Amino acid sequence: MPKEPERILLAHGSGGSLSRRLVEDIFLSAFDNAFLAPLNDQAVFDVSSRSLAFTTDSYVIRPIFFPGGDIGKLSVCGTINDLAVGGAVPLYLSASFIIEEGMFFDELQRVVASMAQTAKKAGVQIITGDTKVVERGKGDKLFINTAGIGEIKNGARLSPDKIKAGDVIIVSGSMGDHGIAILAERDGIDMDTPVLSDCAPLHDLVCAMLLAVPDGIRAMRDPTRGGLATVLNEFAARSNLAMTIKEAAIPVKPEVKGACEILGFDPLYLANEGKLIAVVSPENASACLSAMKKDPLGRDSAIIGTVEEKPKGRVILETQVGSRRILEMLSGEQLPRIC
Amino acid sequence: MPKEPERILLAHGSGGSLSRRLVEDIFLSAFDNAFLAPLNDQAVFDVSSRSLAFTTDSYVIRPIFFPGGDIGKLSVCGTINDLAVGGAVPLYLSASFIIEEGMFFDELQRVVASMAQTAKKAGVQIITGDTKVVERGKGDKLFINTAGIGEIKNGARLSPDKIKAGDVIIVSGSMGDHGIAILAERDGIDMDTPVLSDCAPLHDLVCAMLLAVPDGIRAMRDPTRGGLATVLNEFAARSNLAMTIKEAAIPVKPEVKGACEILGFDPLYLANEGKLIAVVSPENASACLSAMKKDPLGRDSAIIGTVEEKPKGRVILETQVGSRRILEMLSGEQLPRIC
Repeated sequence: MPKEPERILLAHGSGGSLSRRLVEDIFLSAFDNAFLAPLNDQAVFDVSSRSLAFTTDSYVIRPIFFPGGDIGKLSVCGTINDLAVGGAVPLYLSASFIIEEGMFFDELQRVVASMAQTAKKAGVQIITGDTKVVERGKGDKLFINTAGIGEIKNGARLSPDKIKAGDVIIVSGSMGDHGIAILAERDGIDMDTPVLSDCAPLHDLVCAMLLAVPDGIRAMRDPTRGGLATVLNEFAARSNLAMTIKEAAIPVKPEVKGACEILGFDPLYLANEGKLIAVVSPENASACLSAMKKDPLGRDSAIIGTVEEKPKGRVILETQVGSRRILEMLSGEQLPRIC
Repeated sequence: MPKEPERILLAHGSGGSLSRRLVEDIFLSAFDNAFLAPLNDQAVFDVSSRSLAFTTDSYVIRPIFFPGGDIGKLSVCGTINDLAVGGAVPLYLSASFIIEEGMFFDELQRVVASMAQTAKKAGVQIITGDTKVVERGKGDKLFINTAGIGEIKNGARLSPDKIKAGDVIIVSGSMGDHGIAILAERDGIDMDTPVLSDCAPLHDLVCAMLLAVPDGIRAMRDPTRGGLATVLNEFAARSNLAMTIKEAAIPVKPEVKGACEILGFDPLYLANEGKLIAVVSPENASACLSAMKKDPLGRDSAIIGTVEEKPKGRVILETQVGSRRILEMLSGEQLPRIC
């Protein structure tokens, strides 16, 4: 008789010997580094810069495995990206797991291996962590929180407050891939050209941009939940200026456009997990764009619009047929648990 | 007709306008500080020390309100304590919320107010955060993750590796209060003398100890899940020495002792949320103890045992009747979701 695969028990969250085994067998071996190894409740590290960035994100995506990634890869990329778009070099992550009783060990192991691999490729270390187990029906397989610390080099302080009229709006690639990939997986939609999540760490791209135009970038953001439209609305509100973009200039893959038309979604509101939006001073826009296009993750970068004086605090979309309409903030929920 | 109290909707997790309202109405006002106010995805701060400590913890305690505290107070104290017992001065916290759809707004508001008050009293700031909403039945009202950053002053590096034979084991007060408080609340047990959770931030106590005996403390730990027995087992394993303690010397409140006898729990394995265990060099033990007793959170501090050469890696309990037995690591689950 085949053995039932090993599952997570409530006792794996007890703090006792099963917790210890979980940490040693699953986490320590995967995240292997000198900071984590002492298994203290905190990790100690030295920094060279006095100016640090700190961020946190909990990941509750459903399903936990999806085309182009999984909750582990997402939890590393997402937090790296939150640091990177603030102009910080990501250094260290924490990882905290809320596991539902009954989860298969090998699924957890796959997620953790994916986190470890993504972190390694990105040159960041996972140096402290925590695990909790909740009863069956009180969670949903796995939630992961990662907090991240990065160093701000060269005093780069990016902020939407710095946006000025005349600035140029650039996106680093096609919009909506992550949203459609999750939706298709969740609803079992069969697509001629399957869409993969764009889930990727953006810090190398950001580094290339900051090197190319050290003083040219006003603000950056990664358009996750709520997509491009939400980020631009935040920029518009914070700068009290108008973000004017051209629909025809916004990169959207044909298969994403097709899926959106059938399913009634707008790609400008769909989540992305490996894209950024930058507002750049006009004199630096073309240098920034060409630096972005040289990075594999910025190959499809495009200038999509400009910042104007009016209407204050608004995002204006010039459609393909030449009309202008306001892009509002998302008011309801488009796709729950997309990240 | 009375209006139904406002509840959390899935759309509060969308990243759109309802998310923004949630952040502004509930979190920004409560955690009010200059780091958080820009509402960027990361907070930027300066440090004066080059040596930092980093920790994370997810809190899944059930119920979220309990005698002596709530999940908000716990999530701030717990992470402060993880930093403090490593010899770090807690500076900044992140806060990430996984909210179950349908949670009442006013309950969330009470939790957040409690976090803000606890952080303020402890002199730490919550400078970055995140919220996610999961569908009804896919979470349990509220899970909170806090990650924390602290500064290591004066190069104090505490670690169980530094424990030596002859060292003295001190606890800062009575064992098992938190565990019994949660259990009584959860099971509706009526007690003559109700037990309150000891949930409290320990960094002032730690600071007083480090001032009194700067080089005298080898290792510290807060005995949460798994209690005193688990911490001592970790110390024993890491130092490869024997932790020998006297049952009669361990402070346990009579009402906790009584509840344990009736319910079949061992107070040495019950969770605490405002206590610490320190291993101190013999020549510094009495100075350390008297510094601890001067702090309100260390009033009931007691020397409970010593470190011996043998049996290596074991915890030995000398019982009240004079016998000696091995205190093992917890092997199953005593009380799920105690923190």
